[in-house]
Amino acid sequence: MRYLHTMVRVQDLERALHFFCELLGLEELRRRDSENGRFTLVFLAAPGQPEAQIELTHNWDPEALTSGRNFGHLAYEVEDIYTCCARLRAGGVTINRPPRDGRMAFVRSPDGISIEVLQAGDPLPPSEPWASMPNTGSW
Amino acid sequence: MRYLHTMVRVQDLERALHFFCELLGLEELRRRDSENGRFTLVFLAAPGQPEAQIELTHNWDPEALTSGRNFGHLAYEVEDIYTCCARLRAGGVTINRPPRDGRMAFVRSPDGISIEVLQAGDPLPPSEPWASMPNTGSW
Repeated sequence: MRYLHTMVRVQDLERALHFFCELLGLEELRRRDSENGRFTLVFLAAPGQPEAQIELTHNWDPEALTSGRNFGHLAYEVEDIYTCCARLRAGGVTINRPPRDGRMAFVRSPDGISIEVLQAGDPLPPSEPWASMPNTGSW
Repeated sequence: MRYLHTMVRVQDLERALHFFCELLGLEELRRRDSENGRFTLVFLAAPGQPEAQIELTHNWDPEALTSGRNFGHLAYEVEDIYTCCARLRAGGVTINRPPRDGRMAFVRSPDGISIEVLQAGDPLPPSEPWASMPNTGSW
């Protein structure tokens, strides 16, 4: 057997793509519009890692995208967690759990999907503004 | 950047491991108990695919693991969708969306996480008891 993807629903496709691609750094692999089903599917992955995709499902008819507790988060490792968090923050994303330890951060997608960002390899030395930044909300 | 895992919370760890490993076919890669945090983490992956893990988080203190709508499902491709669904069914799992088309099925984990099972390659020829089995519940 083989893992294909984790599917998440998104209310505003352009806003979700801005978050996952421009700010977080994933790439769009393929897209499918269904006129009959009134939905659009967009498959994303980290560059060079097509074996671990996420599928964005955008239903054209609006619905409330509630968060539950059984699903926790998606986790990605990055080369420089400070650069990643600075890009997210500049893009208007709240850093719910700032990388005070140079190792781990949490943010949420526009639809409330929790994303864990982890520093690849050893933690970076503590650095401002992150080292003294408090938590915001939940993740 | 690199995808690491999708985290899901589980109420009963043994029951969740029975579902994900014995019935679905994932393998346990590593496990960590935290006495201080009162949780256990178990990392699973499809055989030979450690780059796409799921992390089971078992908090020792019970909590209600509600389902939301923003998270959809985890998708896995299998060599024989009928064999996979027969094993799940024999293990007491409801096949919410039976593989009537020899191509796609949906089930839920004990904690309500929706799992999409897809036939690798071309669909299989329709086969009973699946071809005439109705949907059950939602997924």
